Amino acid sequence: MNDLKKYVRSVPDFPKKGVRFYDITSLLEDPSGFKMALGLMEEYLISRGAEKILAIESRGFIFGAALADRLNLPLAVVRKPGKLPGKTVSQEYDLEYGTDRIEIHEDAISKGEKIAIVDDLIATGGTLSAACRLVERLGGEIAGISTVIALPFLPYEKKLKGYDYNYLVAYDSE
Amino acid sequence: MNDLKKYVRSVPDFPKKGVRFYDITSLLEDPSGFKMALGLMEEYLISRGAEKILAIESRGFIFGAALADRLNLPLAVVRKPGKLPGKTVSQEYDLEYGTDRIEIHEDAISKGEKIAIVDDLIATGGTLSAACRLVERLGGEIAGISTVIALPFLPYEKKLKGYDYNYLVAYDSE
Repeated sequence: MNDLKKYVRSVPDFPKKGVRFYDITSLLEDPSGFKMALGLMEEYLISRGAEKILAIESRGFIFGAALADRLNLPLAVVRKPGKLPGKTVSQEYDLEYGTDRIEIHEDAISKGEKIAIVDDLIATGGTLSAACRLVERLGGEIAGISTVIALPFLPYEKKLKGYDYNYLVAYDSE
Repeated sequence: MNDLKKYVRSVPDFPKKGVRFYDITSLLEDPSGFKMALGLMEEYLISRGAEKILAIESRGFIFGAALADRLNLPLAVVRKPGKLPGKTVSQEYDLEYGTDRIEIHEDAISKGEKIAIVDDLIATGGTLSAACRLVERLGGEIAGISTVIALPFLPYEKKLKGYDYNYLVAYDSE
């Protein structure tokens, strides 16, 4: 295993009491931590034959953009509703209470294109599986999902079944 | 001048009737465009002696993160309220109607540190001048402000007076 955990700050009771938040801003502030994370994500994306990176708003933009630059790959984005100016398709997904929605430009993905989805965190897998659905609805293929952190005590496995995913560090309990 | 404009898509009537939106997602989808923009921003940040990059949510994350990686500089972030888990300071700024607010971790900037602020766009200058205030309240110095696009028909000059700023392309009218 790598020693990336030393760059990730753990904050108790955020965003609410009883939840522990794993903060990547401390990783970003240390170039050796950020570059270590990017290097490992880069290796994964190469191994999956990614042809385009799809970054998820907002923290996914940070890793996705630097990886697109490193790998010389096109970068597409998934955003919250109402942010993208062109024609979009949108996908709803469940939250703990209620639902949320993400959007993508309908010309952002081409048929058969191998898409790597990049975000900071795999938690419940709700946003990530919605992003996979958007890619597939536009005819793209999921090459893989790359994140920095995973929280395996949350039930993302079921939601991401059938997709290849990779994370750099895991935290085992709340 | 560079020929970056060919990568920027112009969308009429977004986010509302009569407003033209300059869309950088078309730039991101073309690695030559994205890399051209990053190369020019990189030159500017080097010329200003930047010691840390401060990226503004959300599109600023895209350019700020890739620049931090290229320049081997620490990356700090300014976010919308309630997103940062540590102790924050926040700054209000005026919108066309009403006000908005941005936040930064209070330990994100050190005294005397030379900060380069990175975003996609200079429009009214409201968010950017609020970000400058946050940096100064934490004892940092503004090395410069780097964006891809500027809209000089909007009154940002007054708000950014005294700061050095640089943009790659300008659009002269709505």
